[in-house]
Amino acid sequence: MSPPKPTNVMAIDPHGLFDSRPNFSHVASSAAGSRVVMTAGQVGADDKGVAPRDTVEQIQLAFYNLRRCLESFGASVTDIVKLVFYIVDYDHTRRQHTTPLQSFLQGHRPATTLVPVPKLAKPEFKFEVEAYVSLPQQPLQEVDVVVVGAGLSGLKAAYDIQQSGHTCAVVEARDRVGGKTWSSDRTDAGKFVDLGAAWINDTNQSEIFRLVQTLGLETVEQNTTGSVIQEDTDGTISQFQYGGLPQRLVEANGVANVTMLRDRAEEVCQTLDIRSPAQAGSHLDNLTFEDWVRSVTGSSESAMASARIWTRVMLGLEPHEMSALFFLNYCKSGGGLIQTRSDQKEGGQYLRLVKGTQSISIGLASLLQPGTITLNSPVRSIEQTQSAVHVTSTRRQYICKRVVVSVPTPLYKEITFTPQLPADKVELSQRNKLGYNNKVIVRYSSPWWRNYGLSGMLQSFAGPVCVTRDTSIERLGQFSLSCFCVGDWGRQLSKLSQEKRFETVITHIEKTLGSVSAGKVPLPVGIEEHEWQLDQWAQGCPCPASSPGATVRLERALRSTHGKVHFVGTETAYEWKGYMDGAVRSGARGADEVVTALNAAKL
Amino acid sequence: MSPPKPTNVMAIDPHGLFDSRPNFSHVASSAAGSRVVMTAGQVGADDKGVAPRDTVEQIQLAFYNLRRCLESFGASVTDIVKLVFYIVDYDHTRRQHTTPLQSFLQGHRPATTLVPVPKLAKPEFKFEVEAYVSLPQQPLQEVDVVVVGAGLSGLKAAYDIQQSGHTCAVVEARDRVGGKTWSSDRTDAGKFVDLGAAWINDTNQSEIFRLVQTLGLETVEQNTTGSVIQEDTDGTISQFQYGGLPQRLVEANGVANVTMLRDRAEEVCQTLDIRSPAQAGSHLDNLTFEDWVRSVTGSSESAMASARIWTRVMLGLEPHEMSALFFLNYCKSGGGLIQTRSDQKEGGQYLRLVKGTQSISIGLASLLQPGTITLNSPVRSIEQTQSAVHVTSTRRQYICKRVVVSVPTPLYKEITFTPQLPADKVELSQRNKLGYNNKVIVRYSSPWWRNYGLSGMLQSFAGPVCVTRDTSIERLGQFSLSCFCVGDWGRQLSKLSQEKRFETVITHIEKTLGSVSAGKVPLPVGIEEHEWQLDQWAQGCPCPASSPGATVRLERALRSTHGKVHFVGTETAYEWKGYMDGAVRSGARGADEVVTALNAAKL
Repeated sequence: MSPPKPTNVMAIDPHGLFDSRPNFSHVASSAAGSRVVMTAGQVGADDKGVAPRDTVEQIQLAFYNLRRCLESFGASVTDIVKLVFYIVDYDHTRRQHTTPLQSFLQGHRPATTLVPVPKLAKPEFKFEVEAYVSLPQQPLQEVDVVVVGAGLSGLKAAYDIQQSGHTCAVVEARDRVGGKTWSSDRTDAGKFVDLGAAWINDTNQSEIFRLVQTLGLETVEQNTTGSVIQEDTDGTISQFQYGGLPQRLVEANGVANVTMLRDRAEEVCQTLDIRSPAQAGSHLDNLTFEDWVRSVTGSSESAMASARIWTRVMLGLEPHEMSALFFLNYCKSGGGLIQTRSDQKEGGQYLRLVKGTQSISIGLASLLQPGTITLNSPVRSIEQTQSAVHVTSTRRQYICKRVVVSVPTPLYKEITFTPQLPADKVELSQRNKLGYNNKVIVRYSSPWWRNYGLSGMLQSFAGPVCVTRDTSIERLGQFSLSCFCVGDWGRQLSKLSQEKRFETVITHIEKTLGSVSAGKVPLPVGIEEHEWQLDQWAQGCPCPASSPGATVRLERALRSTHGKVHFVGTETAYEWKGYMDGAVRSGARGADEVVTALNAAKL
Repeated sequence: MSPPKPTNVMAIDPHGLFDSRPNFSHVASSAAGSRVVMTAGQVGADDKGVAPRDTVEQIQLAFYNLRRCLESFGASVTDIVKLVFYIVDYDHTRRQHTTPLQSFLQGHRPATTLVPVPKLAKPEFKFEVEAYVSLPQQPLQEVDVVVVGAGLSGLKAAYDIQQSGHTCAVVEARDRVGGKTWSSDRTDAGKFVDLGAAWINDTNQSEIFRLVQTLGLETVEQNTTGSVIQEDTDGTISQFQYGGLPQRLVEANGVANVTMLRDRAEEVCQTLDIRSPAQAGSHLDNLTFEDWVRSVTGSSESAMASARIWTRVMLGLEPHEMSALFFLNYCKSGGGLIQTRSDQKEGGQYLRLVKGTQSISIGLASLLQPGTITLNSPVRSIEQTQSAVHVTSTRRQYICKRVVVSVPTPLYKEITFTPQLPADKVELSQRNKLGYNNKVIVRYSSPWWRNYGLSGMLQSFAGPVCVTRDTSIERLGQFSLSCFCVGDWGRQLSKLSQEKRFETVITHIEKTLGSVSAGKVPLPVGIEEHEWQLDQWAQGCPCPASSPGATVRLERALRSTHGKVHFVGTETAYEWKGYMDGAVRSGARGADEVVTALNAAKL
């Protein structure tokens, strides 16, 4: 966890009152003129309202829920002025809430009240906590354009707009720029790992690569030397050379079915026009990708297992959760199934950034005029009037001429649009589905798998990890395996505690990649993850998929403007949807639209 | 108690709701743009966390604690928007909290909620109250200098700075000017008594006396006509003429020992250089004043009793609580032990102000430009940046070039300095100790003691009152004895309820001064006090003392600047430390520093 930020809350221990350290202050205040945020009482219940039986688990979950409330306003624990606890069966000799509380507060000491109560709203609830939070307000800004979101697409749009001579502000919900480019360096030794987007290509991802070159960022090739470990549906382990296919599968004709599926998918991909996918592919939008796979390979479990790996790793979803047209067009946007999935020369996973992909976002942000970006300030309303557009974020208001919204379509619901979004955009936003994507990144002191001739890639038909990749940066001594916990298997893992989930992943590595080393898998030196679906500013990763019917009817709504509001984001790109290249291209497209409109208005 | 101030809280009784008078309003709001202050739930526990057994006492104590929380932000009860009560064993037929509540609120009616609870954080707690408070914000001020504290030193600094042509604002935590000059007139008949500083001298306290003359304030001589009552260690009462020494003491050689101690202390005082006390006196900083007294008078109890009277009355502390060098230099700053302690022509207690010493502060404040002073606004942070100094008080922010801090060194902890104070100043602030000093002032309809040839002075070796003085203003018909409840005896009295403490003091007067009147001591017509140590903006009175070692190492840190922040206050004076004259001198010194720096910056 990062150290607490300097607080805007004034917390005081008045002379002559008893010592309230370390749990609270006797009195605290919001900053002058701040927005005061108040939460409902947060209980220890999950997203279905179900509470764990264990009281301490409930308390931890209540604080977790409270943190989400804070995040929804771009607030952090140091912004808390006051907490009130309601505790059932309170026992002053066994204050179960203090340890989770201290871990939550990280040294911050708001005013608090503890209220023992006979019961709470439901009999199973044992603990409830509510917060009063101070959110200081920054001065109103008047600019030509406000960009909502400081991910790659938003930053690119802002850069191009500023280059065109117009004023532009960027407002971001998170405490950092980069969106789904997020590079973690827990070691503080510069050994970044990418919790989100990780790969680029230098030949066919021209936009992102140009940016990387402009910023002078160092890249390394993805390691594909050595064997891939194949785990079959029954758990059988085999090996094949990277770039090939499994030699043998437990299913009779399994290899042939897998090959047929791949080739057929590639062939259909190539018939599609990314600028008008429904033209050649409208029939593919009547069925799910799962249906389509069955239509090609019948009941082949191996083929379906392959298809699952594709949709899971690429979108965090199952084949039945998207239309066939959506998936095949998604692949086509990266040049086709094979190119998109490849880790080699022309492939989508060819190069990585030595300092992580967030360094691209940080670099791009540094090219903006100073003071352009406001962090920790989720946009909650966009109101268009005759004369202007009013953008309200939790820490700042804006008056502008145009807005560029760069958030994923399913997150449009987080913003109140006035006038409302048109029906097709609302439907798009409701029907587009974000997947479960979590790379559990296991750090080692050395790339031990290479000693056994392995590339570090696992492809599993048995789970729970779907795919692993070697994501080391040799020059920096950063050695890691990124373990894709995705789709249904990822969702199952997500139900475990983090400790259990990490254990499960490591056990799976030992069972598969470790099978070649006679039980000599070294202990990890670090392990981290980010469950993008739980992240309220992503709600999934890398981008949403469309269910049957939506691509034909709604594909054009992806990029349509709403009055003076424009929409970008990697899912709106024609090329390399879901990739950083697509994000940058979409940002450029949005900036083009805005600058054209602003220049036209001047005439 | 003073009448409630006009409220900034908007409290409403909506039409059609039941009558909520006199206890609460159905709805209330903070002022627009105000700082919202929230307290922790306040229980009826003392500064050690101990709660009285009696529930009503607990309730009263909880409201007392709540008041301290309000005061720590410069807020008052009329600023309360909302109160929540949590009550154990709540009985609606016997609402024990309403009387203390009404006495606390003084007619103000915030919104309230009453929550009966099965228990509170500790089993002994029966009542808890939390408040939500609105603190209106005044506009940011940009001035050359901000002075923190409107006591005499701060007011003098501000006056000199404004006279030099620079702009200067004063920001004060209390609801009044004057700091430890505080003159009470409960009768509203102009019969002021001084709860704090009371005496000046017209010959050697040139700075304060010049100010008194400038302001045209009337003075009276301290009455020293008549006998002093001496109460010996065993309670024996005797008399001696004012200016002399006890004729006989129960200890063999007691009088000789007392005389020797006085003469030796005076002699050593005179060897010290107030501008560099460590030069001649560094060896005196290795021991406490108690140790030094023993080194002079061995085991003489009378001598030690004398020494105790000195340190208690002069600093509210015991002889073992300060270094010998500190005490002797403190005396030297007033010209020596004898002069400092004298109530006659050249002495420290020669003259009083007819309208009380606060009239000096009020007069000085009236010479400042209108709007200079912001009251009820404790400064909580002073941040120095490259370009400016930012001062944050609870009701106003300032941007300035220089700051003058006039609070006592132990109160530096109440302000967050950025950058932090240097180590020597922090140590000074932590090691300097404020004493317990409470003058219980007993008003009579006539100066009855004079009828018996008494001066009104008591000097007690037995306690609990240490010294009394006649503090009457004859012309106004104000007749009073100021009874010094100081040092350890004062701390003991402080543990009693105010009622018991007053009873104890009156009993002691009857036993000592009253011993001459054959039981005919009249009933007081009034009695009041101020426990300066409990006052969060004083934390003791008149000024802090240093423990051994601190004077040699840290004396210079008293007056050192911290970047653009300057420090004044009576304890930083060379002459008349702890006296009003010292305060004024230190203010002039601080103003000099600031004006010199500002003028240099202009060149």
